[in-house]
Amino acid sequence: MTTTATMAAVKFAQENQERFVEELKALLRIPSVSTLPEHAKDVRAAAEFVAAELKRIGMEHVRLIETATKERPGGHPLVYADWLNAAPAADGRPAPTVLCYGHYDVQPAEPLDEWKSPPFEPTVRDGNIYARGAVDDKGQMWMHVKALEALFSVGEGRLPVNVRVIVEGEEEVGGEGIAMFVREHGDSLKADVALVSDTEMFAPELPTLCVGLRGMIYTEIEVRGARTDLHSGMYGGAVPNPFVALAQVIAKLKDADGRILIPGFYDKVVSPSADELKAWQALPFDEEHYRETEVGSVSLTGEAGYSVLERTWARPTLDVHGMPGGFTGAGAKTVIPAKALAKVSMRLVPDMTPAESFAKYKAYVESIVPAGVEIEVRMIHSGDPIVVSTDNAYVKAATEAMHTVFGKETVFVRGGGSIPIVGDFVRELKIPTVMMGFGLPDDNLHAPNEKFHLANFYRGIESIVLFLSGVGA
Amino acid sequence: MTTTATMAAVKFAQENQERFVEELKALLRIPSVSTLPEHAKDVRAAAEFVAAELKRIGMEHVRLIETATKERPGGHPLVYADWLNAAPAADGRPAPTVLCYGHYDVQPAEPLDEWKSPPFEPTVRDGNIYARGAVDDKGQMWMHVKALEALFSVGEGRLPVNVRVIVEGEEEVGGEGIAMFVREHGDSLKADVALVSDTEMFAPELPTLCVGLRGMIYTEIEVRGARTDLHSGMYGGAVPNPFVALAQVIAKLKDADGRILIPGFYDKVVSPSADELKAWQALPFDEEHYRETEVGSVSLTGEAGYSVLERTWARPTLDVHGMPGGFTGAGAKTVIPAKALAKVSMRLVPDMTPAESFAKYKAYVESIVPAGVEIEVRMIHSGDPIVVSTDNAYVKAATEAMHTVFGKETVFVRGGGSIPIVGDFVRELKIPTVMMGFGLPDDNLHAPNEKFHLANFYRGIESIVLFLSGVGA
Repeated sequence: MTTTATMAAVKFAQENQERFVEELKALLRIPSVSTLPEHAKDVRAAAEFVAAELKRIGMEHVRLIETATKERPGGHPLVYADWLNAAPAADGRPAPTVLCYGHYDVQPAEPLDEWKSPPFEPTVRDGNIYARGAVDDKGQMWMHVKALEALFSVGEGRLPVNVRVIVEGEEEVGGEGIAMFVREHGDSLKADVALVSDTEMFAPELPTLCVGLRGMIYTEIEVRGARTDLHSGMYGGAVPNPFVALAQVIAKLKDADGRILIPGFYDKVVSPSADELKAWQALPFDEEHYRETEVGSVSLTGEAGYSVLERTWARPTLDVHGMPGGFTGAGAKTVIPAKALAKVSMRLVPDMTPAESFAKYKAYVESIVPAGVEIEVRMIHSGDPIVVSTDNAYVKAATEAMHTVFGKETVFVRGGGSIPIVGDFVRELKIPTVMMGFGLPDDNLHAPNEKFHLANFYRGIESIVLFLSGVGA
Repeated sequence: MTTTATMAAVKFAQENQERFVEELKALLRIPSVSTLPEHAKDVRAAAEFVAAELKRIGMEHVRLIETATKERPGGHPLVYADWLNAAPAADGRPAPTVLCYGHYDVQPAEPLDEWKSPPFEPTVRDGNIYARGAVDDKGQMWMHVKALEALFSVGEGRLPVNVRVIVEGEEEVGGEGIAMFVREHGDSLKADVALVSDTEMFAPELPTLCVGLRGMIYTEIEVRGARTDLHSGMYGGAVPNPFVALAQVIAKLKDADGRILIPGFYDKVVSPSADELKAWQALPFDEEHYRETEVGSVSLTGEAGYSVLERTWARPTLDVHGMPGGFTGAGAKTVIPAKALAKVSMRLVPDMTPAESFAKYKAYVESIVPAGVEIEVRMIHSGDPIVVSTDNAYVKAATEAMHTVFGKETVFVRGGGSIPIVGDFVRELKIPTVMMGFGLPDDNLHAPNEKFHLANFYRGIESIVLFLSGVGA
């Protein structure tokens, strides 16, 4: 594609910003909350909305792929489309194929009373669009669709690269449907690179590529003491207390500095390169400002000798999310519960694997069982840690695209969380993923007043236009 | 009262057993569940039922005392009655006054599907009456009423002692109403001894007086980390986790053997006398049988060097009842909660006091706060530990009464739980309490299929007839 054509596509995108926002609003009005069965029809309506637009702009083979099975009756459909007619390069090599991924489902909007405008009535204020799903991920997924529309429009129905689009409706409930599809029908998603816009920029105005994600294991520890709940007056002093036992176990998982005490847990941890660490030190990040504005705790915690960015991007961690069981109401009930649970997850970094990490953790917990109780350790789910090499044509194309649009050097960061589909793309499709996200740190993902900065919506579309053109060049 | 008259009262009770059970059934049919606001009318109906019967048998000044106030709109009424016309002793000393205490409210019946017969349709099977409240405490309270009826009946409208009756409707929700009344209107309950039948026999056929109860402090520890819930992927490794901090605190409250680590916590503990310990060793109790049949855990726990009876009756303990906060649903949610709570109670023994014990506990917890979190320690409620001297005329009368009825030596035991009203009687009214209970260890208090062994209902009435006659002799 010529530079002139690319610039024409950018111009098309700029001239149609108002319409693009109106379309996004229509999509945001559909309460496609995938976790709530009562919204199943809305979730499907969002899928159909996306499919219809993909068809309208010129994508081919547009269809919904059902993922519901007898075992998973609540599975939501995937939206698939492709356009695989790009001209080969001058030297005869076939044009590369980009797999654009996004999700059309959203988190629940509760607590509703904390929203300044209703979550499913998209509202523009101060240059932001407020709605559930604005940035995660309807707005970012819509950038892909609109970039494709711009390219089709100036290319007279042709794109500079081959493109497949896959949009899922279960990202907020674990993404099982797409994971199964990738595993079983990977061939039908054959591509050279995936493009995921579900991450955020490190700071406003700072073009950012995410090149690493932590993996995780999410587990439950169940501790059983007496056969039934017993009265703490009559039995207290002679009978094991599962919560006390669980506290004793948890207290042995991490030391006071936050270092994980599971033997061998750090064996496979690969340190970031000196270059990467140096780049992180140059990022606009102040730990005290972060503590005060983002966290609000009296102090930060974690392993001594590592910066916050290292601790959250490149070091494994262990957290307890809740401890169900016993009496949790107001006031007092004097029960010694028969059992107690803890929801415990660990974040993993390259080259740790979920299976090996879980085995070490389980063996350790089973070696420190307090007297009187029995313990079961269960894996709930897991994901691999990912690092994307920055030394490939796709990352270079993305770097340049964002640099051009923002007028600033693109920075490489990692993310502390997991995007399991990126691991699936590596493992099943053997392709790298470009994680080019346009969210901002204060966009309130999963929280009331979720928003998307409209300037970033526009710059995202332009960046993707440039990226796709660059990959096809 | 002459032996002949007492024996006539016993005979009256024996001849009317069938009617007494029918009356009790009518009372048990009223679902007077004090914890559930929707049962407020039933709770009042039970109070009125008891009041009507007290009036019918000959008690005077029968009335409901309202305890609801603006601050406590849900307070349930007390039932009060007295008969204070007993003849003075031959030497001119006034007849003593016995304060009979009971409660007419019951625990919720859930889980309903585990009841073999419906909880509010009293059913007699195998010599037991099954219903919610059968033994706790409607059946035992009804023994008092029926013993009084028998004495009135053979005494031509007179009793051998002065009697006050106070029956509360909030025992299962903390007994705040009666505690306030005792504190503010103690004079109107002036008596020489209280009689409480809300305990159990150590074993079937073994007449038992309870002469000690543990006290308690029920507390909450609240741990706050970040200002709001945060995502464990993005923040894990840098941000304090309140559940991990709470586990670290709890793990420092007790050592692996169950000894409480709060400095000075055991300072005021008074050991049982050598005679008392010897008597406990003679009780029919097998620790392994207890573990297997009552508890069901892989082993018992607790302080080395103390028997189970010592650990549950004469040693302080610490238990965790629940740890509210964070994510407790099925599956996985990757939240670092902003706060976590633990419900922690300690049982106290003489001469520990709630205030001093709480102060030591609070100071200790505040001295071991992990990095990054803030901790608040709150008292929810408390009760004093109690030991009743066995060397007084009332305990002697009770001992003899039960010995006569059961044909066996009465044993003295303690209870591990608390009956706060007994502490209130000591503190506010300056009177001892005779705890003469007729429940059995397998009566399923607070559980499905609560029952009362009818033979013990009858023997209880007879024992109380003999006790009241003995006190008045």
